[in-house]
Amino acid sequence: MYWFYLADIPKKKIFLNQEESRHITKVLRYGIGDTVYLNDGKGSVYQCIIKFIDKKGCELESIAVKHHPQKEYRIHIAIAPTKNNSRFEWFLEKATEIGIDQITPIYSKHSERRKIQSARLNKVLIGALKQSCQAYLPKLNEPMCFNDFIVNSGTNDSDMFIAAFHEENQELSSIYQRGEDATILIGPEGDFDKTEMDLALSLGVARVNLGKSRLRTETAGIVACHTISLINQ
Amino acid sequence: MYWFYLADIPKKKIFLNQEESRHITKVLRYGIGDTVYLNDGKGSVYQCIIKFIDKKGCELESIAVKHHPQKEYRIHIAIAPTKNNSRFEWFLEKATEIGIDQITPIYSKHSERRKIQSARLNKVLIGALKQSCQAYLPKLNEPMCFNDFIVNSGTNDSDMFIAAFHEENQELSSIYQRGEDATILIGPEGDFDKTEMDLALSLGVARVNLGKSRLRTETAGIVACHTISLINQ
Repeated sequence: MYWFYLADIPKKKIFLNQEESRHITKVLRYGIGDTVYLNDGKGSVYQCIIKFIDKKGCELESIAVKHHPQKEYRIHIAIAPTKNNSRFEWFLEKATEIGIDQITPIYSKHSERRKIQSARLNKVLIGALKQSCQAYLPKLNEPMCFNDFIVNSGTNDSDMFIAAFHEENQELSSIYQRGEDATILIGPEGDFDKTEMDLALSLGVARVNLGKSRLRTETAGIVACHTISLINQ
Repeated sequence: MYWFYLADIPKKKIFLNQEESRHITKVLRYGIGDTVYLNDGKGSVYQCIIKFIDKKGCELESIAVKHHPQKEYRIHIAIAPTKNNSRFEWFLEKATEIGIDQITPIYSKHSERRKIQSARLNKVLIGALKQSCQAYLPKLNEPMCFNDFIVNSGTNDSDMFIAAFHEENQELSSIYQRGEDATILIGPEGDFDKTEMDLALSLGVARVNLGKSRLRTETAGIVACHTISLINQ
């Protein structure tokens, strides 16, 4: 089964653009009358019939809708974009497959990259959403400075963790409580600056390890996401 | 801290080649008398002093050795190489960072790739080993046909699992026993063939899910590896 994606799905006539239509006809080899599933990324998956196809796109008619309930916990990862763009895109793809809810790119003192291409990154999220048949599109927030993020997030209800390997730290897996929302901060290759870490600790953020080895930024992001996901299985 | 890698470390004079020497002088900016750590990938990490450097390489003298004990369980992943080579390399890099022991590339009926470049893949493993400061280099086995692998592996002591999403399956995390060796089979994009799955099940291999979503081959490999690693934390 394959789920196509369309952010806003009209009630009656549904049009899919040329790119999606090409996928339907050339890759899946579907024709008029065949069934296509359409996901709005907000939990609803529409069962549709192909009514019409031409070079410019195709027209679908929705015949049924299934609403998928949200999971009970949220995973939010605030992460420093990697110097190598493809590593950051890998993180987004894999975290989406595993099941992330929100990503905030954060710029910290040791950040090696201070610009992201949101449109391109959102395409990565949509691609992974379609591929993994999930009903909720993760939200890619606007990038924020570390200090702004941590001060502004202090008032939300999510448990907050900061990953930084240290022998005395507890493992994320041993202090995270199943069912709770989790926000996890992942630093750049050079790690968070001492003043940033001190600010986080002063605001009650828990410093955690993500296992016994030294992980690259994007690996730490995936490991953090999968840790929370696995504990909630 | 950075650990260099040399498979066979002589007792007295140790030579590092031009590439590693360049890393020492140009990236780390070390000089004669500085301390370098050298990992043999078999658990021993040598503390060495730089005695001599020139364009062709550098000479080290070992002054102390620390042996790192192996962990109590082994993770072996038998996985179909992906059509896109970089996805397979990405799996090897991330699994090494997280902590894998053995990888066997397997060719199944739906495999999209039936050739691998072992030398290049071993370089990926070594790169990830150095980066993540781990003492044991994972072993990349020769590729095998699915049937040969599964029949020959029946006699070893490792618990064996085959990943294939099915509503009735148990989760890998719920049936794997902490401390046990685990071998996990991960199929190609088109999944294992029915005859392959039947053979596995007839030999007592447990069919498992790796979460609720449909994962790409390389993501399934990482998730399986991290699941075993996390349960043993």
